[in-house]
Amino acid sequence: MKGKPLILVTNDDGVNARGIHELAACLENLGELVIFAPDGPRSGMSGAITSRVPLTYSLLERKNGLTVYMCTGTPVDCVKLAVNDILGRKPDLLMSGINHGGNMSICVHYSGTLGAAIEGCIQGIPSIGVSLTDYTEDSTFDACCLLGHRLAVSVLKDGLPKGTYLNLNVPNIRQVRGMQVCCQAEGRFINEYMRSENADKEPVYWLTGSLYNIVPDLPENDILALDNGYASLVPCKIDVTDYGFMEQLKEMVKTNTITL
Amino acid sequence: MKGKPLILVTNDDGVNARGIHELAACLENLGELVIFAPDGPRSGMSGAITSRVPLTYSLLERKNGLTVYMCTGTPVDCVKLAVNDILGRKPDLLMSGINHGGNMSICVHYSGTLGAAIEGCIQGIPSIGVSLTDYTEDSTFDACCLLGHRLAVSVLKDGLPKGTYLNLNVPNIRQVRGMQVCCQAEGRFINEYMRSENADKEPVYWLTGSLYNIVPDLPENDILALDNGYASLVPCKIDVTDYGFMEQLKEMVKTNTITL
Repeated sequence: MKGKPLILVTNDDGVNARGIHELAACLENLGELVIFAPDGPRSGMSGAITSRVPLTYSLLERKNGLTVYMCTGTPVDCVKLAVNDILGRKPDLLMSGINHGGNMSICVHYSGTLGAAIEGCIQGIPSIGVSLTDYTEDSTFDACCLLGHRLAVSVLKDGLPKGTYLNLNVPNIRQVRGMQVCCQAEGRFINEYMRSENADKEPVYWLTGSLYNIVPDLPENDILALDNGYASLVPCKIDVTDYGFMEQLKEMVKTNTITL
Repeated sequence: MKGKPLILVTNDDGVNARGIHELAACLENLGELVIFAPDGPRSGMSGAITSRVPLTYSLLERKNGLTVYMCTGTPVDCVKLAVNDILGRKPDLLMSGINHGGNMSICVHYSGTLGAAIEGCIQGIPSIGVSLTDYTEDSTFDACCLLGHRLAVSVLKDGLPKGTYLNLNVPNIRQVRGMQVCCQAEGRFINEYMRSENADKEPVYWLTGSLYNIVPDLPENDILALDNGYASLVPCKIDVTDYGFMEQLKEMVKTNTITL
């Protein structure tokens, strides 16, 4: 690697969230840091992209090897715009977070934090999403920062396989017991809506719900690790093809003559 | 299966798009149909969910076994709300589309059409995303409808493996040559932004770009199939864990002492 590593930092809680600044602070000795993040909260934005309105961004700060931008787009927009038009070279690492709230199990499909990591991975950048299972503003990010920093050092040194990104979740407890490499738990949200009323007494629906581990004894699943007091680290793939089902699907297509 | 199958139809182009009505029309002989779709375009919304504002929905039409609702949310919101609070029972099938525009390769990560199919799959419903590689309003949906219908019949009969959904893309050509079971091509968008100016002469960035097949000779990849005049059918997984990298990641974590 020539010169200092370039590290792109983004999130889905917005540029003013505490988590992203805690993350940048713990990475500052590792290279040149650029924060390019949404101008406000974009939780649950998944891999959403903005195409019907144009994006703008602005420079907020530049000092001591840290440059901070904010952007009107989603987390994925931020990664795309930063990589395509703002950074002079491809980052050596993308870190997304620290998210205020856990992104274990199926949350990988809803999370803007992971949306950004997926986009980084698509762009060919070793990418890591970092989340703390706590929504409160005064959360303790110490364990998150320690693990995130060591993971960053390791990934800067060894890289990641093409098409694979990492999903790190850290439990919000005083004594995190360690970190476990995990698979994605088979989760499901239950009781997903709270019915309420607007000022005109019409029904409105607020998203809520709690994450349920459908197969709690699935070996090495991430919800289980977190429940047991460990941070979970799940390697995830961009290629979502179910290769194990392809041959059977070919049979099904043939047997049922699904053709033109 | 008891009684008529219940089929939930949604999309990301909105309840007024032609594609969703073409899809519903071709499925009408298969069971009880409920369209529950966004009230306007939600292209590129991926798996986004709405949590900061409440959702509302309204009934637009009910006749001849077809019920049509529109909702203020994203495609995923539509699926969640329909399944949680509107439909009396779990649908036997979810069809999302017909999308005006292709969703091959990495588009699975950006597409609201697929976001809805992923959500259906998470909810335990056999789910299929259907897309036509054409954005124009006067597209020909014939091949899409024929294949979508036959696929629906087959999936209603045989089901799909737990945690697997289908991504069908149909090329916009006069003579589609058939359908191929494919894997997800390794795609990348290039030239993703067009720089322009707003009325105040400030720079703004419009998302654009074209999809490039990085490994065109990857066997059975979906972009290749479409380029060759075939519809592509990719089985996709909810579980994105890179199982093949887990042991190596454990070694990496150990060697680099990434722990607390």
